[in-house]
Amino acid sequence: MNKIKRAIVSVYNKKNLKKLLICLKKFNIEIISSGGTFREIKKLGFSCIEVSQYTNNFEILEGRVKTLHPKIYAGILNKRNSKKHNKEMKINKYDNIDLVIVNFYPFEEILSNTSDQNKIIENIDVGGPTMVRAAAKNYKDVTVITSDTQYDELIENIKFNKGKTSLEFRKKMSLEAFSETSYYDSLISNYFCDISNEKFPKKKVIGLKRLEKLRYGENPHQKATVYKFLKNFNLEKLGGKDLSYNNYSDIFSALKISRSLPGNIGTVIIKHGNPCGVSIHKEKVKSFKLAFNSDPISAFGGIVSCNFKINEKIAKEINKIFFEVVIGNGFEKKALKILKKKKNLRIIDSSKVQKFNDLKFFSNGEAVLLQTADENKFETQNFKVVSKTKPNSKTLKNLIFAFNVCRFVKSNAIVITQKETTIGIGSGQPSRLDSCELAINKMNKFHKLKNEEILAASDAFFPFVDGIEKLVQAGVTGIIQPYGSIRDKEIIDFANKTKTVLVFSKTRHFNH
Amino acid sequence: MNKIKRAIVSVYNKKNLKKLLICLKKFNIEIISSGGTFREIKKLGFSCIEVSQYTNNFEILEGRVKTLHPKIYAGILNKRNSKKHNKEMKINKYDNIDLVIVNFYPFEEILSNTSDQNKIIENIDVGGPTMVRAAAKNYKDVTVITSDTQYDELIENIKFNKGKTSLEFRKKMSLEAFSETSYYDSLISNYFCDISNEKFPKKKVIGLKRLEKLRYGENPHQKATVYKFLKNFNLEKLGGKDLSYNNYSDIFSALKISRSLPGNIGTVIIKHGNPCGVSIHKEKVKSFKLAFNSDPISAFGGIVSCNFKINEKIAKEINKIFFEVVIGNGFEKKALKILKKKKNLRIIDSSKVQKFNDLKFFSNGEAVLLQTADENKFETQNFKVVSKTKPNSKTLKNLIFAFNVCRFVKSNAIVITQKETTIGIGSGQPSRLDSCELAINKMNKFHKLKNEEILAASDAFFPFVDGIEKLVQAGVTGIIQPYGSIRDKEIIDFANKTKTVLVFSKTRHFNH
Repeated sequence: MNKIKRAIVSVYNKKNLKKLLICLKKFNIEIISSGGTFREIKKLGFSCIEVSQYTNNFEILEGRVKTLHPKIYAGILNKRNSKKHNKEMKINKYDNIDLVIVNFYPFEEILSNTSDQNKIIENIDVGGPTMVRAAAKNYKDVTVITSDTQYDELIENIKFNKGKTSLEFRKKMSLEAFSETSYYDSLISNYFCDISNEKFPKKKVIGLKRLEKLRYGENPHQKATVYKFLKNFNLEKLGGKDLSYNNYSDIFSALKISRSLPGNIGTVIIKHGNPCGVSIHKEKVKSFKLAFNSDPISAFGGIVSCNFKINEKIAKEINKIFFEVVIGNGFEKKALKILKKKKNLRIIDSSKVQKFNDLKFFSNGEAVLLQTADENKFETQNFKVVSKTKPNSKTLKNLIFAFNVCRFVKSNAIVITQKETTIGIGSGQPSRLDSCELAINKMNKFHKLKNEEILAASDAFFPFVDGIEKLVQAGVTGIIQPYGSIRDKEIIDFANKTKTVLVFSKTRHFNH
Repeated sequence: MNKIKRAIVSVYNKKNLKKLLICLKKFNIEIISSGGTFREIKKLGFSCIEVSQYTNNFEILEGRVKTLHPKIYAGILNKRNSKKHNKEMKINKYDNIDLVIVNFYPFEEILSNTSDQNKIIENIDVGGPTMVRAAAKNYKDVTVITSDTQYDELIENIKFNKGKTSLEFRKKMSLEAFSETSYYDSLISNYFCDISNEKFPKKKVIGLKRLEKLRYGENPHQKATVYKFLKNFNLEKLGGKDLSYNNYSDIFSALKISRSLPGNIGTVIIKHGNPCGVSIHKEKVKSFKLAFNSDPISAFGGIVSCNFKINEKIAKEINKIFFEVVIGNGFEKKALKILKKKKNLRIIDSSKVQKFNDLKFFSNGEAVLLQTADENKFETQNFKVVSKTKPNSKTLKNLIFAFNVCRFVKSNAIVITQKETTIGIGSGQPSRLDSCELAINKMNKFHKLKNEEILAASDAFFPFVDGIEKLVQAGVTGIIQPYGSIRDKEIIDFANKTKTVLVFSKTRHFNH
């Protein structure tokens, strides 16, 4: 590569320009610019040619057309080692542009600040991405800079190479340039999809921003990184060790359940992606204790999530137990102080988390499966009492609590509850009967059954009577389950025979 | 919108041009074009102005700069309802371009055909995406067409609107245009990441192509679509009902295990994402029968995957059982005929599947977790015998088989095997002890224990002796597990005391 002779600078974000300009001046690099960037450069006391003067073409259409000119693009795209190219440059009196410094109209920022379509559309940058793409394509000869965070590295590289840049650096900048243009267009594409209510376009592009590189993935020999969606990431870490891949995964599993519970009274404990204790109780300490006592052995080393503000009293209770992560809908100062005594305990504030993405996806081999999330709150019309024994409103409420927890348990899922607290969870079994047994065993192991009704929920229908039979034999007096088995009638008959409350749900809730 | 007066046409893919040109001619739409497209239009007998003639500027740098000219971009970007814009157009003698028909250099095709970096880079289209982005931005006045599959709809829309297009249509085409440009740049961005070995760039863009819209997601009230990665999708459906979301998910779970087994001898049965039977045996019918008998109740309604070609005999065995999907590494003609008798049975040929994506990801709420896959084959140096009782080579091989299956079972996972066949699988439990009990119960339920050694694998270390104790009490004589517990020594002591073979793995294999 030859010494850089000429740069075009067109930046929306004008931060840190000065140190860059000092460097360009030092190496006698001529600057072309326009509009606000031109004025800024002048204001900072550096010399600069306006694009319109350079191309001998006026900027028109309120800036929509300024840099889109062959003199600019030939300058960028010219292959410096091609005799033919260089000859054509000479004939046309075009000069090389060796450095392109561009950042785009802030489409992402505008998106989060306004819903005015005209304003949003006007902020689709056309000239910027074109210059960047041309320069990134021609990285063998041209350096492309797309963010002010790259200035220091650029300056260092130019200084080290005495007015040039290294091929390695240019290639890296091209990588970042195309990552920038594709991310930028993913925002625009998804914006058009949003306003057209098109969830599943023919070509779907998911743009992600790196949140942090993780030490490793699900296991130490796997590499991993956590990315956030376009919107802001609102979880805040207030203390403790770095979050691991499995922490992140469990935190989100916990939050999904926490958010599905009535506000300010629910506790969820997660282990290996499954809840092992869920409770709602208006006394917050009780809510925590009940959730923990659901399966105190599994809770060991788990994640606890409270959808209420954690106070001193609860913090003391939490500290008695070994948890990896505690999530609170805010923390009282004193509580935070107590929790921070455990240096390793990761403390997560979820109070700023708003809406979750309504589209979830996962990749598996050659394909990616996208689907809308299953997180809507239940309406009573989703359910129908089908047994002769009718539940009172409290029982029905408790049954719906059990069913709601059940849909967050890995399938096949059975959840046994007492007074809006889980007392037995059977998860992840290929046979529904096995899940029933697991839930019953947990209940019998950890709970002395008091004089309170025991209720059970199933995430999908019972294919046979045997599962519901086992539950009733164990003391369950009310069951909630989706309808749909060819043996539904047998199951209703069995419920009637045993005076069990049976409620059918219109919706099934597999979760794998 | 006014009547369309002028179109620019620049297409790499020249299919179906004729019917389009007939329509444009009918409505007296002037055509601007260049290069190969210009020649093709002429050849088809239609009139056309060359871009260089239109802009009065020669095409230079081997076509790198031809359409990048203010006359073209002002023509596209002019806001037709702005007096200021129209006045500037008049002063500059620029005319409106109302229709942009562009498809890009075939970057994706080139990528799969060559590894020549120069050729790949040359196929990064700069002019095309710029015209498309400009037109898509100005969709209130301009129609943008990015694929020949849109021609019919365009022709219909122009005819219906007598030489114009509807706003709704233009907006839809803009959506598809940005989906095209962002997808195109995602390919380029990922290419640069690949050659730079950068798995986790600051901004990551995942480009997906729709494979099929699904009837619904994990549950009927969820909407879902399956997408494929950039590479080809090589699974072939040879018969049966449409694949559901859960089918897809299970198929990929099955294939991951099938591919991890020695070639041509393994059978895997999957239910709810977990294996419920895995066996390798050189007699293929036996391999199938053993896998099925591992847990015949759970296998009901599951997915069976053979990593060998399915012959008549096996097809007959498969047909005796209700499976949702059968996957074969190819099918003999007669076998296919037999399987097709079951109209609902989905028949999947996996023989063309090559490499899986080595990056897997899933979204959870506000974030996306990306990690490298855990699918490498095991080398013996990954393991170390730590007990006094040493395994012979057959036992070690069988232990590694158990460990390999175990890593595909949802955590906590315990797998009990006999002669390279699972006989008890405990999956998805928050407590490892519970997974041990589940696996033991399965074994006792379905298997008369013959005079063969019983082996067990755990996906992570045992935190206490109790789990391994339970296994040994149930008849297990060899155990394989990752090391890492503070009680490893106690566990080794226990193994020695009971003359159990104990093998430690260097790697842990959580799978959630």
